[in-house]
Amino acid sequence: MNDMPKFLQRINQDLWLVEDERENMKISYRIKDVIFSAQSEFQHVMILDSYDFGRMLVLDGVVQTTSLDGHIYNEMITHIPLSIHPNPERVLIIGGGDCGAAREAAKYDEVKHIDMVEIDEMVVKVCKEHLPAVSGNLADPRVHFIYADGMEHVKEMKNHYDVIIVDSSDPIGPAKQLFEYDFYRNIHDALKEDGLMVCQSQSPLFHREIMEQTVKHIKQLFPIHKIYTATVPTYPGGFWSFTLGSKKHQALPEEPFDKKTKYVNDAILRTCFELPEFLRTK
Amino acid sequence: MNDMPKFLQRINQDLWLVEDERENMKISYRIKDVIFSAQSEFQHVMILDSYDFGRMLVLDGVVQTTSLDGHIYNEMITHIPLSIHPNPERVLIIGGGDCGAAREAAKYDEVKHIDMVEIDEMVVKVCKEHLPAVSGNLADPRVHFIYADGMEHVKEMKNHYDVIIVDSSDPIGPAKQLFEYDFYRNIHDALKEDGLMVCQSQSPLFHREIMEQTVKHIKQLFPIHKIYTATVPTYPGGFWSFTLGSKKHQALPEEPFDKKTKYVNDAILRTCFELPEFLRTK
Repeated sequence: MNDMPKFLQRINQDLWLVEDERENMKISYRIKDVIFSAQSEFQHVMILDSYDFGRMLVLDGVVQTTSLDGHIYNEMITHIPLSIHPNPERVLIIGGGDCGAAREAAKYDEVKHIDMVEIDEMVVKVCKEHLPAVSGNLADPRVHFIYADGMEHVKEMKNHYDVIIVDSSDPIGPAKQLFEYDFYRNIHDALKEDGLMVCQSQSPLFHREIMEQTVKHIKQLFPIHKIYTATVPTYPGGFWSFTLGSKKHQALPEEPFDKKTKYVNDAILRTCFELPEFLRTK
Repeated sequence: MNDMPKFLQRINQDLWLVEDERENMKISYRIKDVIFSAQSEFQHVMILDSYDFGRMLVLDGVVQTTSLDGHIYNEMITHIPLSIHPNPERVLIIGGGDCGAAREAAKYDEVKHIDMVEIDEMVVKVCKEHLPAVSGNLADPRVHFIYADGMEHVKEMKNHYDVIIVDSSDPIGPAKQLFEYDFYRNIHDALKEDGLMVCQSQSPLFHREIMEQTVKHIKQLFPIHKIYTATVPTYPGGFWSFTLGSKKHQALPEEPFDKKTKYVNDAILRTCFELPEFLRTK
C-alpha cells in the first residue's frame, strides 16, 4: 500500500493505529477502514473506522473522540454547567470541533445563541460528515461556527456569555495556552456577572500537576470552584476531571434532569462532584 | 539478552510489555525492570516495575494489578459488601492472589476469620514479597491461605460464610467456571441465611454480555441484587462493574465510613450504585 496515511501501520494483514504520544504507555487500535485522512493548516486529521470503538477522530495520530464513548465526555462537559446556570441564553464553546458539546447544548430551550470557536475548520467539516454518532450532523440555527483562535476570541469579549465551555485537546501544541492563567482571566471577563465556565482538566492520575494548576487558576478568579469526574474509556486511565468556575450559581435545579442522553442522568448529575479519597485530601 | 522473559520485547534500548490478549486493542507498557519471572503450575507469573504504573502483577502476559491503582479495585470489591453486612464475622475471598482484598477485609474489627482460596500459591508469595503497595505485606492471623480451586471449596461449604468476595481474573482459562451459574449456586449455599456476595463482573462497555449474564445468575439466586461501578485505570476502558447478591441486607450503615483508604470514602460508598443512563435502560 503506497498511500498509507501517517500514523498507521500494516502488521501482517491488519491495519493498526499506534498512538505514541506518551512516553511510557502506547495504545494500538485495529482499524477496519480509513474514512478520511488529510493534513489541515494546523494538524493531521483522520477519521478511522476501528473494530472496538467504531469511527474515531484522530488528530496528529492521537485519538480524540470515538463513536463508542464520545457522548460520555460531551454530555459531562455540557450538561453540568447548563444545568447549574438557571438561564443559559448565550453559550461559548472553545474547541469542541467534534460538534458533540454544541449538539448537547442545543438540547436546552433556554439557549438562544451558541458560539463555537474552533481553530480548525477541517475538523468540524469531517466530523459533521463522517462522525455522526458524535456530532449528530449538527445543524441548529442557534449554533454559530467561528473558525478562529479561541484565546483571541475571549480576549475581545467582555461581559457577554452566560456559560463558557472549554473543550480543548491536551496541553501540547496549539492547545497549550488554553491551560494558562491569562486565558482563564479572559474567560472570567468574557462572562456576565453571574456567568460560569467549565473546562476539561485532564487525568487526576496521570496529569495531576496540570489538573492542580488548572484548579489553582480558577480558584484565583472565581468565588465558586468545583472538580467533577467521569469515566472516559478512550482517554488514558479512563478517569477524567473537569473543573467548574462560577461567579454566582452552584446549585443544581430542583426539577429532575430531563434531557435525552446516553450517560448523564439525574443521579450522575447529582453525584459527579463526589471525589475519591485521594482527590479530596489535597 | 538471552534470558528475556516471555511476553516482553526489547524495542531500541527499551523494554516493553505488549499485552495482546485482546484482538482489537493492544496496550504496551514501558518497563524499568523485571523483578520476578517464572512459570507456575498454572500460569506464567511476573512482577514488573513499569514507568507509569509502578510495580505490576502480570499473569500470562496480562496486567492484573498495579501499585498505582490496585487499591481502587481492591477497596471497591471489599468495602462495599463489608459495609453493608452488619456483622461480617466469617469472610471468604475466592482468588484475590494479590492479597489486596484480604488486606482491606482485615481493616474490620468485626471480621474474625478470612479464608483466602487462591489456586496459585506462587502469585500470593510473589505479591507478598514484591508488591507491597497492593498486598501490604499482609500478615494478619485472621487470614487463612488455602491454595485450592475456589469452585471446589465453595461446593463443600454450607451455611458457613457471612460475606463471599469473588475476586476472579477474566473469564478465560482457569477462571472461566467462576462466571457460570453452578458456581453462584454453590456460593449461595455456602453463605449463611443473611449472607451476601460480591463479584467483579467485567466492563459494562466491552464485556456487556458477561456482565449481564452474571447479573442474571445472581438475580435468579438472591432476592437482592445490585450493580455498582468504579474507574480502574489498568482495565480496558477504565470502567468496571461489580455485582452484589444478598439474601437479606442491602442498606449501608448510618455511621459514616471510617476505614483508612485511598479511594473509597463515605460519598463513594453511597453513590457507587448510581449508574449512567446506558446501564439503567436495560
